[in-house]
This record gives sequence, structure tokens and C-alpha cells, in this order.
Amino acid sequence: MSHNTFGHLFRVTTWGESHGPALGCVVDGCPPGIRLTEADIQQWLEKRRPGQGKFVTQRQEPDAVRILSGVFEDARTDGQVTTGTPISLMIENVDQRSRDYSEISTSFRPGHADYTYFAKYGVRDYRGGGRQSARETAARVAAGAIARLVLPGVAIRGAVVQIGPHAVSPDRMDWDETLNNPFWCPDADMVPVWEEHLAAVRKRGSSTGAVVAVEALGVPAGWGAPVYGKLDAELAAAMMSINAAKGVEIGAGFASAALSGEENADEMRAGNDGPQFLSNMAGGVLGGISTGQPVTARVAFKPTSSILTPRKSINEAGEEIEVSTKGRHDPCVGIRAVPVVEAMMACVLADARLRHRAQTGRD
Amino acid sequence: MSHNTFGHLFRVTTWGESHGPALGCVVDGCPPGIRLTEADIQQWLEKRRPGQGKFVTQRQEPDAVRILSGVFEDARTDGQVTTGTPISLMIENVDQRSRDYSEISTSFRPGHADYTYFAKYGVRDYRGGGRQSARETAARVAAGAIARLVLPGVAIRGAVVQIGPHAVSPDRMDWDETLNNPFWCPDADMVPVWEEHLAAVRKRGSSTGAVVAVEALGVPAGWGAPVYGKLDAELAAAMMSINAAKGVEIGAGFASAALSGEENADEMRAGNDGPQFLSNMAGGVLGGISTGQPVTARVAFKPTSSILTPRKSINEAGEEIEVSTKGRHDPCVGIRAVPVVEAMMACVLADARLRHRAQTGRD
Amino acid sequence: MSHNTFGHLFRVTTWGESHGPALGCVVDGCPPGIRLTEADIQQWLEKRRPGQGKFVTQRQEPDAVRILSGVFEDARTDGQVTTGTPISLMIENVDQRSRDYSEISTSFRPGHADYTYFAKYGVRDYRGGGRQSARETAARVAAGAIARLVLPGVAIRGAVVQIGPHAVSPDRMDWDETLNNPFWCPDADMVPVWEEHLAAVRKRGSSTGAVVAVEALGVPAGWGAPVYGKLDAELAAAMMSINAAKGVEIGAGFASAALSGEENADEMRAGNDGPQFLSNMAGGVLGGISTGQPVTARVAFKPTSSILTPRKSINEAGEEIEVSTKGRHDPCVGIRAVPVVEAMMACVLADARLRHRAQTGRD
Amino acid sequence: MSHNTFGHLFRVTTWGESHGPALGCVVDGCPPGIRLTEADIQQWLEKRRPGQGKFVTQRQEPDAVRILSGVFEDARTDGQVTTGTPISLMIENVDQRSRDYSEISTSFRPGHADYTYFAKYGVRDYRGGGRQSARETAARVAAGAIARLVLPGVAIRGAVVQIGPHAVSPDRMDWDETLNNPFWCPDADMVPVWEEHLAAVRKRGSSTGAVVAVEALGVPAGWGAPVYGKLDAELAAAMMSINAAKGVEIGAGFASAALSGEENADEMRAGNDGPQFLSNMAGGVLGGISTGQPVTARVAFKPTSSILTPRKSINEAGEEIEVSTKGRHDPCVGIRAVPVVEAMMACVLADARLRHRAQTGRD
Repeated sequence: MSHNTFGHLFRVTTWGESHGPALGCVVDGCPPGIRLTEADIQQWLEKRRPGQGKFVTQRQEPDAVRILSGVFEDARTDGQVTTGTPISLMIENVDQRSRDYSEISTSFRPGHADYTYFAKYGVRDYRGGGRQSARETAARVAAGAIARLVLPGVAIRGAVVQIGPHAVSPDRMDWDETLNNPFWCPDADMVPVWEEHLAAVRKRGSSTGAVVAVEALGVPAGWGAPVYGKLDAELAAAMMSINAAKGVEIGAGFASAALSGEENADEMRAGNDGPQFLSNMAGGVLGGISTGQPVTARVAFKPTSSILTPRKSINEAGEEIEVSTKGRHDPCVGIRAVPVVEAMMACVLADARLRHRAQTGRD
Repeated sequence: MSHNTFGHLFRVTTWGESHGPALGCVVDGCPPGIRLTEADIQQWLEKRRPGQGKFVTQRQEPDAVRILSGVFEDARTDGQVTTGTPISLMIENVDQRSRDYSEISTSFRPGHADYTYFAKYGVRDYRGGGRQSARETAARVAAGAIARLVLPGVAIRGAVVQIGPHAVSPDRMDWDETLNNPFWCPDADMVPVWEEHLAAVRKRGSSTGAVVAVEALGVPAGWGAPVYGKLDAELAAAMMSINAAKGVEIGAGFASAALSGEENADEMRAGNDGPQFLSNMAGGVLGGISTGQPVTARVAFKPTSSILTPRKSINEAGEEIEVSTKGRHDPCVGIRAVPVVEAMMACVLADARLRHRAQTGRD
Repeated sequence: MSHNTFGHLFRVTTWGESHGPALGCVVDGCPPGIRLTEADIQQWLEKRRPGQGKFVTQRQEPDAVRILSGVFEDARTDGQVTTGTPISLMIENVDQRSRDYSEISTSFRPGHADYTYFAKYGVRDYRGGGRQSARETAARVAAGAIARLVLPGVAIRGAVVQIGPHAVSPDRMDWDETLNNPFWCPDADMVPVWEEHLAAVRKRGSSTGAVVAVEALGVPAGWGAPVYGKLDAELAAAMMSINAAKGVEIGAGFASAALSGEENADEMRAGNDGPQFLSNMAGGVLGGISTGQPVTARVAFKPTSSILTPRKSINEAGEEIEVSTKGRHDPCVGIRAVPVVEAMMACVLADARLRHRAQTGRD
Repeated sequence: MSHNTFGHLFRVTTWGESHGPALGCVVDGCPPGIRLTEADIQQWLEKRRPGQGKFVTQRQEPDAVRILSGVFEDARTDGQVTTGTPISLMIENVDQRSRDYSEISTSFRPGHADYTYFAKYGVRDYRGGGRQSARETAARVAAGAIARLVLPGVAIRGAVVQIGPHAVSPDRMDWDETLNNPFWCPDADMVPVWEEHLAAVRKRGSSTGAVVAVEALGVPAGWGAPVYGKLDAELAAAMMSINAAKGVEIGAGFASAALSGEENADEMRAGNDGPQFLSNMAGGVLGGISTGQPVTARVAFKPTSSILTPRKSINEAGEEIEVSTKGRHDPCVGIRAVPVVEAMMACVLADARLRHRAQTGRD
């Protein structure tokens, strides 16, 4: 995992700033012969796209992806297929309003990476956050769309399970429900609670945090590897690399600290196809290797840092200022993170599958 | 990060099984000219060593480390110093009791990686858990001891902040107190509570989970990098790769989901030396780059999987069995994880420092 | 070094096929604050560009590069500068003649990678060679242009020193002369010999090989590293990865096999600034680390595989055929390889500089 | 490829100095279930071992290898087999004569890496060359022994084809002959010529260079990958990383510069099992991917730098001195390089096989 590259064999290198001409990624190591068109990718970008509800930013970006390399179609291939060479994807930034950035060009917005980029590089593209902008996650979602095609038989699904102090109870989880509301909320009764909370947050120019749950069904036993290549360690890095993520847990996660050994260790019975686990506190991973159960993770997202409320800060000259961020901003970035979390799960699993196949010769 | 290698420039490759002749690591990329003797490493291994209290395993292992390469001393060097070539460390396994492993050789212990190793590799060294044993963490601690020497001015400290359901309140944190009890507990009043809890757990042949907190003081602003090389993403991978870890959070972590934007974004005032932050919800990292504040993380550990209570399981033949794990086992692996968590923090930071220096020419 | 990525810290990932919509690269790890405009890159692409002489292909490609990310200009920066984030470069393929490829779509051209791509991937973009086309080297040259900016004080220059059987004598090397003829030939007297040879080769529909020499002046002592990170090992990989390269040598290279120890080991005398070497058989590298002398290498290129002469081959169906390649082709690919060889030298050195700085803190 | 690590999936990390307590390597990524004992490795170390003839150094080193991890034997495994976890190998240095190194401790021996190590690191283990010593190649040979086991069906063989000015003619190559003489010479008539040459070289306290040829039979078509992962680029790096190597060529190599397109491009006819190539100028690699023909390479080695003849040099203080190297030294290091070249070929191919399997699912 290099600075802007994720993965070992299924490798994703992303590039682009919020207000540059375009952003994109290069996906290297994809197996050949997989059917892939722009529509396969676009559908997931639509899921991530802003402007879809009143609680996500109204910025209108078509986010139209172009495949620039790595696919080919002729009479003998089954439609357009991957060729095994790097797949270059590009999304042009068409909604770069020519606004005036002079106000924030020298200010450090609290909670943003303005100060740290400046401290590290001495120069930063302050327009819309530059490279630190969540625009970068569009490239992740695009790469994740390809990763899904490398994972036949695996289904990945995400949900928001907490917004602000309002958490969905585990026994209320209904995955089908996530498609019925703009919050990817798995509990219909929670939807009005969140609506009210978000309306209040928005009204006072504030923001709120969230927790996203994700699971992958159909992962066979054996993916992942000891010791630093653990499947859960890779997932932790993948999730924590998402903008605004502050925590990652696998299976029972932090709750496992309060469990007894009897509660925690998943018992097994003989199944038709390997062990039948009687619970899944492990989140589908033991010793860094998949068990064959669903791989489950949860990711905590901090509240959007861009808020209307004036906040104390300093500028590049070291002078004390107050910062109030106007403009189009989600009050809860966690909502739009769902397809990103799913995409990172897909990338990690695609990589794990190829690494497992390399060492063992099995899928 | 490869299967058994951690880090990019400060690279640690570990090897060894619990009951093989030895275990160790190779540390590559260490800067030259750093004073290093076996005693510098041994002191940290002592901190990790079992047999130090009644609530950690009584297995007696001297864990004496040998430096096999990468250091040199002559008349012109200031004592024994690193040469810039790979440092090979070895710890012999002297306490390999010749016990009978036939009972567990074909059984899958619930919560352990017995089944997943078997599913992946088709063969496994079942003696003491083989490669999945926490014995491997001795190599991490040894590598971490070297990493600390690459971090002049940085102090790293860890503490257990929760055992079972008993969590230390944030306003009771007294780091000095961690040295006064066998639990690395930062709250003197909590010590008897944990003692009682652990005694009860041990009595009923069970085990319990824990949460470890760690922080690094003295990290300058600028370490880490976008996007997949984020300092917190590297930390997440490092921590989640530790045996029994199930969750990682940075700064406010999962609690940030319930915060408002005003509560979460750390305000800044002018300091003598860069910004003065008024809080540290960020845990010292913004946009994946250090802020100059303490870098703080918390890691959740599940209960020890080896328990006396009989548990349902299956064996390699797919037959249903009951497993009860006798022998020397910590009721709470999280306690002994403290020096390991510290070591991983050190390794991540040493790597981040070298990478930062590479790109920017500054330390 | 991954499949389509070169370098460790100064990392270049290239993508694109000969007849796709575009090709390009992502340069990650570049230090911040370096002045960089498209013109800085374009000048080197012009040097590589075909259509510049009668002995290179007449295909007309403007090869106009666009910088899509990683640079920024505002009032406070000294012109447009790098920001430390990934630099994405794109060159559109504007000269994709809509010709008929059906003839070669199922044939394996001898000397080309048609068969091996098919054997590996089962599918291939046969238009103009697809990913195996030397078009990819435009991305290398673009990346190399950035690498040069990371190497202040280092001058890199290349020359063709052999075409077919006609080699330039070492005592006839005049680097200034390389700019006076279309062959980058360092010996004015050799120019008419090569002209005649190439005219004859072209007339009979054949092709010819070449040797390119390259040297880097101003590299300080200390770059590179043992054992597998040797500067010469990295150079060998870099050069051998260029299309049609079949051999690489450093310093005296293969000739050193016939030397005595006295002839080979470069003697040293005291200089004002480190040792003064009395010869440079080592090619500026000892033990994989630069000596402070010029770093010198030579690269052998095989003859262009696309020739008019009919050659025996087979097709995808396994049928025996004859292949004759019509169209625009250089009779000697080695000539156009000069700027590519220079670019790879630059990329290797930029990476070595950053790695050296990481480990030692010195440039 | 990191400083002391070679390979991507079949990864070898070596460590150790010439006169430290031991040297060794960690082989990570090896497939599980492969039978492996110390004897499997020892046989190849014997081939490399010094003290086997009058033209190689008389230093007596048993070079006994120990396997410290990564293998397991029990009733259900077919003898001792690899487990998929890292294999740690160690060879103790038993022949560290307690000689006086004060003479060379501050001198830079011409042709050696004494000066460059000092320039880079500011400190160096000068005893026997420290890390730059060819002792390190014992670890390569040990790793190569394991790599061979990952390559069923592939046979690798090396030969010395030139010593000093005396080259074996290609039409005199008899691979069986290499086992009949101490030079791995494939031409019986050349043996007395080399004997005489080496005797003369030794008598005058000098040394001589050599060229080693290596080929791998049985490599299927499809291994390797574009663009920077080319099989020949990996081979070039592997070979150039060997001590004293100064040149690498694949197939026709530098000779291809003088060929015509007709001579160079290997023609194909229909075979029973893919194409039948009518020649092998390509050396079994086209576009970086194996063709199914033998993979052939040649490596040039410079003369031993340690010679009795006094040579001009300087010391650490910058004073001009004369250096004459006494002691046990091969007059021609190229001879002992044969098993090392074979080992590097094996490591590159094992890695290529696993990478190919990862991306395509085929072996």
C-alpha cells in the first residue's frame, strides 16, 4: 500500500483533486476476460452521487466515467472484456463553479486537513479541499465496481446503522429496508428519527457523525493470510483510509472487550460444506483468514467538518481567525460513505482472492 | 505490507512458530549510526514477558534476544551501532515442553485460527497454535524497540482502559499509575475491580476481553500521507494485525459518530510553534497526516479463546466434538498486548518518519 | 515494481494501448514545491516523437501531454508547482487511422508479443500491438521529464553507439555531436555509414538492431543500496523493461569478463571532494551504490520485428501462415529508444535519491 | 523489491555479514504442502561451497543450513512439508578466523564497495567485506533451492562460458560436460585452456572475469507480465544484483544489435502443443512473457577485486595509500557464481509462476 495505491495484486491507484480538470484511477492486476463496460461502473457511481436527497449535498455532478484502457471488444470476445492490462478510468469534474476561494486560501478549517497538508507539503490546492476532498472516493467506487466483477458469488451490502446518537438495534436490521430510504437505513422505524435529527442539525448549521455497517456474503474459507496480511488488517486499513473515518471494527469489535470467552468464541457444528458456525462474533475472520461466514465490519465517521457555526482557527500567517464554512455540504458524510465502504470491501476481497489463488492454487 | 512483512521503508519481516526451535524478525531499512545493543531490545521484551503476574500465563520464557546482523562496533564507532544493513533478531524457544498434542492435532478450537489455517493451507503446525500463536508478538516487540530508536523525541505509552465490562473513565486517566500495577491500569481505583473480575473469570475457566489505549507524544506535524498511506490507515492495519484484536479507533473513534460538528472539529489558536489545538478529538491525525498533537488510538481485544469450559466444535474429519483447552493461558490477552500495541505504534511512526523525510527532505 | 508500476518512492504507473483513446501515467511520490508545467514535459516528448526523420516512422502524433492533477498555482506559489499528490498525465491518441486489422487479428507476428499475450491472457488488443506497443514509452518519457526535476545537478544524456554491425569506437565519443544528426550519433564520421546501412535495410524491407549508451553526470556518492536494491540492479530492470531491449551492461559490462583485476578495479587518488577515480570501469556503481563518478550503462535493442519480408508463423487456430508486416515502421527501434533510456535512468535515480534521503537523511 | 528483499509473492529477505555470527534468509509466500528438508537445500549449498578446487578459495565453510520455521511433520503429512508460513533459514559462520583487520579497516580497496558503503552509511563492517561479501549469496542459493521445489517440471542449469578472453563457442556447448570439471565448463577442450589461464593469473597475483550462461527448460508460455513486471526485466534485476555482475543479456542479447530483422525474429510452425519455434533468439521471452521455449540468459562478472598487486587508493582520512589484498580469494569469482545465477533464475520463475496463477488462475 503506497501513498495513493491500494492493494497488492488487485491494485488501485487514484489521482485527482476536487477542482482539477478530472479525477480517476488505474486498476492494475485485474484478471483478463471479464466483461466490463462503463455501465457496469456507472451504476455504482450513481449510488454514491450527491444530489439525491435533501440531506446530501446539492452539488450536481454527473460523475460520468470513461474507460480509457484495459478493455477490448472484437468478434471473438464475449462483448467488451478486460485484457489483463491496466484499466484507466477517468471522471471529469464538470461542476467546478468559478467561485472565489481567496477567503479560505490561507485559512485552516478546523477538522479539515488544511493545516496538515500545509505543514507537510508547504503548498496545497485549497479549492474544495483539493486532494483531501471526498471527491476522491468516486475513484474508489469506480474501482470497487471492477472488484465486484472479480468476486463472482460474493455479495456486498452496506447500511448506515447510527446517525448522531440514534443507533439501529441489531435485532432491527433488515437489509432489504436499506433500499427504501435515502439513508441506507435498515430499520424503517428509525428513518423519521434520523430525518428529524438531520433537519435540526442542518437548521443550526451543524453536522453529525454516523456508523456504517458492511458485510460480504459468499466469501469462502481461506482468504486472507497471516500475519501482516490478515484479511481484517487489510480491511481496517481500507476503511480507515476513507475520508472522515475514525474507527473500524470486525465482527463484535469493541463490544468483544466486554464479552466472556464462552460468548465470544463461535461454536461449530458439522455442516454439509465445512463447519456450521453457531454465531459470528468473529465477523467471518479468524487468525486473519476467512471462515466462510459473512465478513462483517463497522466503520465510524466523524461529523462533517464544514459547518456554518463560526469556529476558532488560525491562518497560514499564524494569525487567529474565525472560520465559518458556507456552501453545499452534507450534514452527515457517513450517509454518502456507504457505497465507498462497500467498494473498499470489494477491493480488499478481490485482492485477497488473487493472493490466495497465487499461494494455494485454489479460489 | 506483505504476508509476514510490515512497513514500507522501516520494514519488519517476522518468522517462527510457537513450538519451533526459534522465532525472530529481520528489520530492514533502519538508518545507520544508531546505537543498538541487545539490552536495548531486551528491556521491552521483559515488559511483554509472561510469568510476571498471576493473571498472565505462567509459561516461563526467558525470551533472550540475539542480534545476528546489522550492527558493528569498532574503535571509531560510538559503541555498537546500526550499519544500515538488515538487522536479524532471533529468540530461541526454550520452553517447548514435550507434551502430547495428539488431542488437539485434529480438533478445531473455537475462536482460534485452527480451522482457517487448515482451510487455507491444508496443513498446520498445531503445537501451541504454530504461527497463529501470540508468541509471534515477541518479534514485534523486538522490532518496536529498534523503531523507538528511530524516533528521538517521541514517547509512546500504552494502558489497559477496559477489562470485561469495567472501563476506566477518561477523566481518571493517570499514565504514571500504569507502572504501579500488573494491568497497566491508569486508574488506581480500578485495579481491585479488575482483580476481582479476573479472579472470577479464572475460577470459572473462562476469559475476558479488554481495550488498550496508546498514545505517541512528540510526533511533529506532517507525518503520514494521503490517501491510502494515511497515518491512521497504517495504524489501523498495524493494530488489527495483532492477535485477538477486533477493533481500532483513532481519537474520538466510534464516539465521534454521536458528536456534533462543533464538538468534533478541534479548534486552533496561535501557538509558539504552529497551532495550539483546543482539543484532540482527531487523535492527532487529520487527512491522514499528523497534526503535532499526541497520536492516540484504542484497540479492542477479544477474550482469550482458550478456555476450560467445554465448547462445541468439529474436527478435521468433520465430526462433532467438544473442546476444552487446558494448560497455561492468560484469562485476558489484552493485558499482555500493551507492549505489542506500543511496538506497532513505534513501527508505524518510524516508517512514517522515513517516508516523510524521503518526499519532503524534512524530519 | 508491480506489473505496470515502476519505482518504490518515485512511482510511475503507466496505462494505455496503442489504439485506445489515450495513454498516460500517474507519478506518485514526487516531492512538493517543484515548478512543473506541461511545457517541461512536452520538450522531452518532442525528442521522442516519431516523424522527425526519414529513418523513423512517419506516423504523425502530436503527443500533447495534459497534466490532470498534482500541480497548483496561486499567488503565493512560484508559478505552477507540484503539491506532493499524484501527478496524472494523459496523452490522447489522435492518429488512430481506421484501418482494417482483420488480417493480423488472429496472426502471431514473429518477434512480437502477439503469441505470448494470447497465451497468457486468452484475449488481446491486436490493434497496433495494443499494450505491447512502443507507444507506452511516451508515458515513460513524460514521467522521466518529472524525474529530471527531482534531480537538480544531475545531467543525463544518451547516444546510439551501434547500429547493425557498425559500432562507434569509444575513443570517438563526442556527446555534443549527438545533437547534430537524427541518430543521436556521437561520431560525425559514423553518420554516413549508418545512413547507408539504414537505407539498404529499408530498401530490402528488413530492420536492424542497435546499442544505446547513457550516462548520468553529477550523481553523488551514496545512492543505491545493497542487496536487491542495488542501483545497477534497478537500472537493469528499468532498461530491460523497455520494448525490444535484450541486454544491459553497467560500466565495462561484458567486456569486464576479459579484463584482469588490475585493469578492472578503478584506482583512487585523493580529490578535493572525495576520491578521484583514475578510471570508470565500474560505471559509477560499486556494491550497488554510486561512487560519485558518472553512472554509465549500455542497452542492446533487437531489430524491429515488423518487417516486410514474409516470415513463417501460425495463427490462433494453430494453422501455419506467412506474415509480412506492412505499414509505418522504424527500421531501427533503437534510435527512438534514446529518450526512453534517458527517462528510465532519470526515474531510477529520482527513486534512488528519495530512498537514500529516507534512510540517511542526506541527499 | 526492497533493499534486502527479492520477489513479489515468492519473497526472499536475506540478512547477515561475512564475519557476523550467522547469515540467512526468510522465504515468504511459499505454497504449502511441499516436501522440504534441510537436505533439499544443503545439496545446492554444497555446489556453491568454496574449497572445492584449486581455483576457488580454500576457506573452509561447512555452510550447514538450519530450517527454523515454516515446515511441519506429523503422522498425516507426507514427511516434513511447508506450511505456507515464512521459512527461516540460518547458516552459522563457523570459519571466522580471528585475524587482524586493522590494516583494511580504514582503507578503501579498489573495485570493492568499501568506499561507497562508507559514503552512504558513514559506518561499515569491514571484516571480510561485511554485508557486501559474496557470503550473502549462500542465502540466495538456499532460497533458490526452495524455489526449485515450487517449479515442478522446470529444469535450470548454468555454465561458465567465458573466462578472461577465452570464450566457449556456442556450437561447442555440451551441458552434460559441465559436471565433469571444476569450472562448470560445457566444452571439454576449453578446460585445459582455462586451467592454464587461471594458473597464470594466480601466479601473478591477479584475477580474471567470466561470463555465466543459464537456461530454464520447461517454462510454459504465459509467465511474466507487461510492462515493468516483464520476466526479462525481473531476471535482469536478479542477475545484476549478484556480487560482481556487470552485464545481463537475454537470448541473443547484445549480439542482436548486429542482426537483421529476419535473423532475429524467431519463426513459428505448428507444433503439437502450441507453436514450434524455429530458433530462440528471443531467449524464451517476448514482450516480457515466456514463449514456452527455454528461458536463456548470460551474466558478465568482473574480475575479483581482491588482488595481490598493489593498487593506488585512499583511506577514510583521505590520504593516498597503496592497497594489496592478501588472503584466500578466488582468482575468478564467476566460477562460484554459477549456482547463484541458477538460484536467482529459480527465484524469478517461482515468483512469476505465482503471479501468473494469481491473475489468470492457471499455472
